[in-house]
Amino acid sequence: MKKTSIVSIGNELISGQTLDTNAAYLSQNLLFLGIPTVSFHTVGDESSAIVRALDLATADADIVIATGGLGPTDDDLTRQAFADFLEAGLVLHEDLLHQIAEFFSHRQLQMPLINRIQAYIPLGSDAIANTLGTAPGIMARKQGKLLFALPGVPSEMKQMFQESVIPQLHQFAMKQAVVVKKLKCFGAGESAIADMLGLMMQRGRNPLVNCTVDFGVVTFSIVASADNFAAAEEMAQQDERTLRDILGNLVYGTGEQTLAQVVGEELARQGKTLAVAESCTGGTLAKLLTDVPGASKYFTSGWVTYNNHAKITQLGVDAGLIQKHGAVSEQVAEAMSRGARANAQTDFAVAITGIAGPTGGTEQKPVGLVYISVDYNRGTDTQRFIFSHDRAFIRLRTAQTALNMLRLKLRV
Amino acid sequence: MKKTSIVSIGNELISGQTLDTNAAYLSQNLLFLGIPTVSFHTVGDESSAIVRALDLATADADIVIATGGLGPTDDDLTRQAFADFLEAGLVLHEDLLHQIAEFFSHRQLQMPLINRIQAYIPLGSDAIANTLGTAPGIMARKQGKLLFALPGVPSEMKQMFQESVIPQLHQFAMKQAVVVKKLKCFGAGESAIADMLGLMMQRGRNPLVNCTVDFGVVTFSIVASADNFAAAEEMAQQDERTLRDILGNLVYGTGEQTLAQVVGEELARQGKTLAVAESCTGGTLAKLLTDVPGASKYFTSGWVTYNNHAKITQLGVDAGLIQKHGAVSEQVAEAMSRGARANAQTDFAVAITGIAGPTGGTEQKPVGLVYISVDYNRGTDTQRFIFSHDRAFIRLRTAQTALNMLRLKLRV
Repeated sequence: MKKTSIVSIGNELISGQTLDTNAAYLSQNLLFLGIPTVSFHTVGDESSAIVRALDLATADADIVIATGGLGPTDDDLTRQAFADFLEAGLVLHEDLLHQIAEFFSHRQLQMPLINRIQAYIPLGSDAIANTLGTAPGIMARKQGKLLFALPGVPSEMKQMFQESVIPQLHQFAMKQAVVVKKLKCFGAGESAIADMLGLMMQRGRNPLVNCTVDFGVVTFSIVASADNFAAAEEMAQQDERTLRDILGNLVYGTGEQTLAQVVGEELARQGKTLAVAESCTGGTLAKLLTDVPGASKYFTSGWVTYNNHAKITQLGVDAGLIQKHGAVSEQVAEAMSRGARANAQTDFAVAITGIAGPTGGTEQKPVGLVYISVDYNRGTDTQRFIFSHDRAFIRLRTAQTALNMLRLKLRV
Repeated sequence: MKKTSIVSIGNELISGQTLDTNAAYLSQNLLFLGIPTVSFHTVGDESSAIVRALDLATADADIVIATGGLGPTDDDLTRQAFADFLEAGLVLHEDLLHQIAEFFSHRQLQMPLINRIQAYIPLGSDAIANTLGTAPGIMARKQGKLLFALPGVPSEMKQMFQESVIPQLHQFAMKQAVVVKKLKCFGAGESAIADMLGLMMQRGRNPLVNCTVDFGVVTFSIVASADNFAAAEEMAQQDERTLRDILGNLVYGTGEQTLAQVVGEELARQGKTLAVAESCTGGTLAKLLTDVPGASKYFTSGWVTYNNHAKITQLGVDAGLIQKHGAVSEQVAEAMSRGARANAQTDFAVAITGIAGPTGGTEQKPVGLVYISVDYNRGTDTQRFIFSHDRAFIRLRTAQTALNMLRLKLRV
């Protein structure tokens, strides 16, 4: 199997001012072509650093794609670095010069003299047309390796990759087809889930099963490689079925789906409505729900009852209940969800009360203690959780857990 | 001058599924310490690739910071790769094992056996405490180079970098003193603001003035370098004064302050209270306000009146007003803010109604049309905005603009 290494060039990258979206875009698209990426090497605008990165990348892989440093200014050094790496001189291409001049005249501008440098290509290499900008790319070969230089501007890079690089890669006749599937899970920690899967996550297995975790959402990716698409698809599907069997109710969706989307789709499908009442999450749950376009089909209203007065006057929570059990209690959570459902006249209401911290915790009621209550036509289900990490984590994890409780109630 | 190289580890990175925000965060923060980053090397979850990346990074720089691969599962190989790279065995640290077990028992969970591996550290290396998760970091030395391994989870990585890595780096303290100041602005576009500053933003100038923009918040960083701290501080202060003179009311804060923090501090200082009523932002404004610890001092309650029924029953908006002018109108925004303030009995109430899209727009009322109303003891101020970009941008920009309106009212 052929492999790629990506070289990203630019001071704005290694100073942290700009996120490298180009490398991620390229590796994603190469994977779909069946060409996995094994490394990224990122360096600044310095000739020797670029040459060294090209050396490293060609040692790592069969195909090297470099982005950035093809502009016309003094700090654009990729052209010269490619020439140095290839031990070839830069040669003026009259046709490129003509194209660059046309780019400006088409815009009724004079071509700055400085752009002339962009018409130079290392001897023995080919130019790659750039229909969106002035910087042509470079395609070169060295010791059986294929190298490309593309501009750093994402729109130009993507167009050139799709139009000019992909056709070249077909010569590597990837017999291999790759299918990627993602399963999104919620309700158990990464290590507990990994325990359940055992050998499925072994390295070198095909399909390769990986997992990442983000605020309690565990995402499994299944990457299946085979001689043809149908076979890869069949392998990926089989793994997906196995994972679903093992993980059961923990699986909430596929691809890039969020919990709020899945809950929203199910509410819409069942023609049900929802209201929420939040204390410690302070609007986070309502925000997640309304992040989804079309949420007005099922989401009617929310309350952020941050102080006790609001809980009493807006949701009809009994003041005595708060005095007896405290605002962070099972009883108050239950009263909040019932009050919200009654006031909003919805099918479901979810209420949250807890201590997001960093202060306000006690020994009996520590920071991270949260009660989530779901009120619906089958009754009221109130659960107690203790989350850790910081305020932002506790709030987001709490809101996600509330969505997950609702999802499980909607499954029946 | 000392230099850093960053090693990012994870299949999700080289497959393009996850953007590497860690490397950018680290290089940005290292630059503020006067330690530039010269390269990133990114590899997958493979032991030999990690070892090679550590080799390359130590060849590039004096300090190496690796992130990722410290989790408890089979594809977390950084611990072993560090041991291989250092030619040292992994040793169980009983104190770490105890901490990890406590992490689980605090959450009333059984520690999975798999997490035991996280208590192993290469012989001769030090553990770095992780107060947010189970994965301790590693600090090691080899041939005069200083190496760190941190978790890939950004919140854990950042906390450990700030608390444990930065103090270690002070030994590399450069002769050059660098002072960085940040000014946060809201209320005008990036290019308009840059135009106001003229030559101050010139490349190569000292102090160097840069600006970045994030959902309407324009952040200026002033980086002053001098022989000693006092001189650098004086230069940075002088530039800050000049910027404040030019930008006036656009400057809302310094450092990492958010609009919600600044508004909250001012409300607390003046002993005023606040309620909010949101339609299209669906809880975003309440969430931003309650992201700030201690918000209960001034924030009492919020309503997410997503449908008309909620606007009428919860905020007392006249149904005829909605019928006549539409839910997205100056009149309804005004009625919402007045209703919210009256119901919540607060000093200030902010209301938002608008069309966040992607659908629901008309020629008269396009997607992005938003009314924001502030009701307080001096009357009601309602303003009309049209924001563009997508749903997420419109919602966040709207909430931030509401906070900015409130900020300007609180300044008097």
